[in-house]
Amino acid sequence: MAEETKAPPPMKDLNIDNITENTITINNQGDDARLKYVMERLVTHLHDFARETRLSTTEWMAALNFLVSVGQISTSVRHEFILLSDILGLSLLVDAIDHPKPPSSTEGSVLGPFHTHDAHTISNGEGMSSDPNGEECLVVCTVKDTKGRPVEGVKVDIWETDSSGHYDVQYGDRQSPDGRCVMKSDEEGGFWFKAIVPVPYPIPHDGPVGKLLKLLGRHPWRPAHMHFMFEKPGWDHLITALYIRNDPYETSDAVFGVKQSLIVDFVPASAAIAQKYGVKDGTKVLMHDFVLVDEKETEQLRDENALKALKALGRRVKLLNHLPVPDLD
Amino acid sequence: MAEETKAPPPMKDLNIDNITENTITINNQGDDARLKYVMERLVTHLHDFARETRLSTTEWMAALNFLVSVGQISTSVRHEFILLSDILGLSLLVDAIDHPKPPSSTEGSVLGPFHTHDAHTISNGEGMSSDPNGEECLVVCTVKDTKGRPVEGVKVDIWETDSSGHYDVQYGDRQSPDGRCVMKSDEEGGFWFKAIVPVPYPIPHDGPVGKLLKLLGRHPWRPAHMHFMFEKPGWDHLITALYIRNDPYETSDAVFGVKQSLIVDFVPASAAIAQKYGVKDGTKVLMHDFVLVDEKETEQLRDENALKALKALGRRVKLLNHLPVPDLD
Repeated sequence: MAEETKAPPPMKDLNIDNITENTITINNQGDDARLKYVMERLVTHLHDFARETRLSTTEWMAALNFLVSVGQISTSVRHEFILLSDILGLSLLVDAIDHPKPPSSTEGSVLGPFHTHDAHTISNGEGMSSDPNGEECLVVCTVKDTKGRPVEGVKVDIWETDSSGHYDVQYGDRQSPDGRCVMKSDEEGGFWFKAIVPVPYPIPHDGPVGKLLKLLGRHPWRPAHMHFMFEKPGWDHLITALYIRNDPYETSDAVFGVKQSLIVDFVPASAAIAQKYGVKDGTKVLMHDFVLVDEKETEQLRDENALKALKALGRRVKLLNHLPVPDLD
Repeated sequence: MAEETKAPPPMKDLNIDNITENTITINNQGDDARLKYVMERLVTHLHDFARETRLSTTEWMAALNFLVSVGQISTSVRHEFILLSDILGLSLLVDAIDHPKPPSSTEGSVLGPFHTHDAHTISNGEGMSSDPNGEECLVVCTVKDTKGRPVEGVKVDIWETDSSGHYDVQYGDRQSPDGRCVMKSDEEGGFWFKAIVPVPYPIPHDGPVGKLLKLLGRHPWRPAHMHFMFEKPGWDHLITALYIRNDPYETSDAVFGVKQSLIVDFVPASAAIAQKYGVKDGTKVLMHDFVLVDEKETEQLRDENALKALKALGRRVKLLNHLPVPDLD
């Protein structure tokens, strides 16, 4: 016999009209208020989806088989469920909810499925791409706070594709990280490195997500961009990217990542810049100042946004560890 | 450059408030009206779920990793996504939507993840379980239509666990099908066979679905039952099960399958029955009459239910191949 924590509510004769309420009740036996709330909303939306579409058994089975294939093509370097979340706009949405940005700060963008944890740490001036076919460029950045003060010692992850539009992890014979690096911002909040000019590329579309895009008449392309991730204790984790102006996919990014404030220009290096950074005259240079938000400010903004949004939705909630749960008092 | 079927709508600066509308628009470029409607409802519910829970990046990542693990534990004989759908009440709901039953017909129940396509066909009187530890029983059934007329030549799939509560496919060393069979109803609509008395069993809970049940404080048990599936061209596909009365899990089935009309009794074989069917006096006997609905009647009922339900939900739809799509005229 099973270990039963509590007697579940009696259930029988479940049908279209009572299954939701009963599923929620049986899911409500644990002690985790947040999990119970998340499951209640999940079951409600899942069932409403089926009721509103009158989902057929054939469609249901096709969907479940699709989800199996999304899981099965995933590996330690390919997360097809992140990709699915990306093309459904969910990744953008969750980032926007979890990392609200005050007006003066750098906006976030989608993480995507290609970040890894094995990139080498490089020093200012070093290169992060070994692709001989890429067009070399210089990237000169700072990290500051919302008051314009430099933030030192920020761990910065940077990653981009090679000149053919592929990340290192997309090659079966990958020996070591390439097209990616980790840097630390210096005492002036600065970090600068050599890279290659980003190119547009299609997200991996040889798997189930690619099939879905095709069925939907959507292209799989992302505009040229370079990913950046910023981490330092006390500061809100910033995942973002810089997009190169006038890309053909600027307004049709397959994963909804482009923001006007993240669109940047390459400019040819002047003689002074070329000399200062040790590059050839005319080398394409990208200069950008990133602005981080301190963790407390983000937390406060996130809490305020949550309570305001849920009030507008007519949901009576309180925050528990900064996340909404029903307010039953 | 990508092959583009149509120019997508221009999109940039997507945020919590406009991402849903934009995702729906970009998904709307294909020609399949049904797919577009299903995706529109899916994206709406998925995004509303994230907005109503203020889903955090940590929770989102945990959910995506959970889904990967559900896909990865799945095999040709273990469909963990069906199991997930079962414990979330979705399987019951989809069956109820797709296979509406007029009052005089046999109700449906959940398919579960253990049906296979390799069961041997047996004749009346043969056995379908080789488990020497099971308690032998006799099952005597008929298949009729709603007017009480026998339906001949119906393909009937029957499957149950062994006496330890495991299906054959749960054994790594499975050589051939056991605890399952296929039969054909005879000219009187009858089919009868020997089996073992079903026992309650836990659904597979060594994987991600089991972990979720534990987190929710739910037990994984199903009440003792025997699965039946009926197929014949012209008749609505019936997936159902018979549940043994007074099972400890009768009102707490982990997958919501029990219906009062499907609860049955075993009775000891009388001398006459024992002689007629070639079993020992007192052998447990289960007798049941199944009632199929013809395909046309089901289709009509399904269509009516769909239009009625969607009208009640305030959605303006028409039916296309018997499935709702927006009525834009």
